[in-house]
Amino acid sequence: MIVLFTDFGTCDPYVGQVKARIAQLAPNELVVDLLHEVPPFNAHAGAHLLAAFAPHFPPGCVFLGVVDPGVGGARDAVVVTAGARWFVGPDNGLFSVWAARAGDAKIWRITWRPPQLSASFHGRDLFAVVAADIARGAFPQEKLVAVERLGVEFDAGDLARILYVDHYGNAWTGVRASAVPPNARVLVAGHTIPPGEGYPFVGKGEAFWFANSVGLVEIAANRDSAARRLGLEVGDRVTVQRPN
Amino acid sequence: MIVLFTDFGTCDPYVGQVKARIAQLAPNELVVDLLHEVPPFNAHAGAHLLAAFAPHFPPGCVFLGVVDPGVGGARDAVVVTAGARWFVGPDNGLFSVWAARAGDAKIWRITWRPPQLSASFHGRDLFAVVAADIARGAFPQEKLVAVERLGVEFDAGDLARILYVDHYGNAWTGVRASAVPPNARVLVAGHTIPPGEGYPFVGKGEAFWFANSVGLVEIAANRDSAARRLGLEVGDRVTVQRPN
Amino acid sequence: MIVLFTDFGTCDPYVGQVKARIAQLAPNELVVDLLHEVPPFNAHAGAHLLAAFAPHFPPGCVFLGVVDPGVGGARDAVVVTAGARWFVGPDNGLFSVWAARAGDAKIWRITWRPPQLSASFHGRDLFAVVAADIARGAFPQEKLVAVERLGVEFDAGDLARILYVDHYGNAWTGVRASAVPPNARVLVAGHTIPPGEGYPFVGKGEAFWFANSVGLVEIAANRDSAARRLGLEVGDRVTVQRPN
Repeated sequence: MIVLFTDFGTCDPYVGQVKARIAQLAPNELVVDLLHEVPPFNAHAGAHLLAAFAPHFPPGCVFLGVVDPGVGGARDAVVVTAGARWFVGPDNGLFSVWAARAGDAKIWRITWRPPQLSASFHGRDLFAVVAADIARGAFPQEKLVAVERLGVEFDAGDLARILYVDHYGNAWTGVRASAVPPNARVLVAGHTIPPGEGYPFVGKGEAFWFANSVGLVEIAANRDSAARRLGLEVGDRVTVQRPN
Repeated sequence: MIVLFTDFGTCDPYVGQVKARIAQLAPNELVVDLLHEVPPFNAHAGAHLLAAFAPHFPPGCVFLGVVDPGVGGARDAVVVTAGARWFVGPDNGLFSVWAARAGDAKIWRITWRPPQLSASFHGRDLFAVVAADIARGAFPQEKLVAVERLGVEFDAGDLARILYVDHYGNAWTGVRASAVPPNARVLVAGHTIPPGEGYPFVGKGEAFWFANSVGLVEIAANRDSAARRLGLEVGDRVTVQRPN
Repeated sequence: MIVLFTDFGTCDPYVGQVKARIAQLAPNELVVDLLHEVPPFNAHAGAHLLAAFAPHFPPGCVFLGVVDPGVGGARDAVVVTAGARWFVGPDNGLFSVWAARAGDAKIWRITWRPPQLSASFHGRDLFAVVAADIARGAFPQEKLVAVERLGVEFDAGDLARILYVDHYGNAWTGVRASAVPPNARVLVAGHTIPPGEGYPFVGKGEAFWFANSVGLVEIAANRDSAARRLGLEVGDRVTVQRPN
């Protein structure tokens, strides 16, 4: 299984080109679109989102992760295996949070370049090819050089910001809920958000935070957009206020 | 074939997680995205849309239908077979219009719960598993209890409202065109809309109604957005004005 | 491989119906979504985009191309083979730019009509069936009549306009970069845009043009929306200013 995680946009003609390339090289491989709306150019938010999603996909799967504002420049391309999943993409920190948390990362720099490499679309021309190799079980040793470390390593602790706003208007934070007391409050954009057990347990339009389906603190409003109601945007700082 | 019909949003990271779960359980099953933009939380609109789409998909297919504002609360989960199609999702009326019209519904409550059930994402954790079982021909008797009726039953007649606005700006109603005289007019948002045979037969920007590709009365404008031009929104009432 | 190229919208319930129809007729065929956001009703922009994408898909693939404001009217339906790819859709010029550039087009009019043909959705009822036939290697001779020419033929030279704006805010033109000097400037919407080697080589927010991943002149801004910054829209004229 190849899992696509990008900022390519769901509606643009990029994902289809990647899939066509994969299909030519690994025709029997399932390709799953996880997210193509990572906040554009934001590898930092992407790294924390990807670390939250990864354990919900099966061991052995290959994440083709592309949030790549440095495409065409000096940043390296990498293959990472960590925590029983594979990752292929730019060496800009996107895989660093998961790698650090897993603690068992092996890293290779991709030295191979295809005969035709566009300046702006390494997802199609370079990463798709390497991901297809790995997914079909043909580890491309000849395209890689083992390295010790990633080129960019983000702090692997929580990221106390809004990372993503979904179409319901729910705001995902980079704070892992497992370490937050159930009765804590979350401060964001001048608001103090109480915990809530779920939509059916709060009044219509009422905001609350909960541990979402990938273990992050998420701010929601019952049958309403929390983001619009509270004025939340990607990048806003959040603070967990622990009870006394 | 598993057909996804949800309000999960096309652009959000929900559908991919559902597909990955299905792929692990029923790897050879085709999964088709019918619609992920059912008006959010609106099981009533969803029920009428789903009833219109269902006959256009092959007998035996499994609809994974999730419009589920009550997730995590007391609402039940159900499996329904009616009119030669299967349905898996929340017991909140979403399948009730099709079931009543088909007249031959069999219903089971899903009593099984997975080892890890998130509070907010039963689509991935519960419904995907049951839908995969059914699609691969392994009816999960042990996860179900037969029941007599659905927990919520919407009126199975037409729903005289706008149910959906597409990206062209065409507005779908819940009125079945088969019972509407071809020369009727449709009243909506203060406008009186005449029938039209199709885009090529009306002037540019002109609004008309027609029997759409799933048999509903739809309001369109030639090469323009009817919704913007006429100020139409989901939920607006429509009235069919029969000719004298 | 069947490649979908339409203005059906990524978020609407049209693409899924097409895929379900294809799956019933050619269950083993891979279907790739290239683009469903061709500017609505704009077969002219679509023709130039499709001609740029086509060589990036494998020989033998079948493009199901539907940008079809004349659906239900007098326009014909066609099958085209040109430049080693297949095309199925309306005879409104959508395939004419590629066909003229390839120079080896063979054309058939689709005379067959399905038992149930909706007025507005030939993509599902007619084109999907013919595309599935061709993709699975069953050329549907009995549904076709060979013809000499397409019904509508757009000029096959460059189209010096903005054809598409992606979600990053990058603006694609219909000008092929191969004939543009690398130090040319592009005039658009009152701005003069210099060439740029890529994102890492210009300042943040700075606009530049480059040869994009399908060979067209594209206007971008580093980590910003060029379209918003410069006020660009589909249809805007562009002029290439060659250096003295």
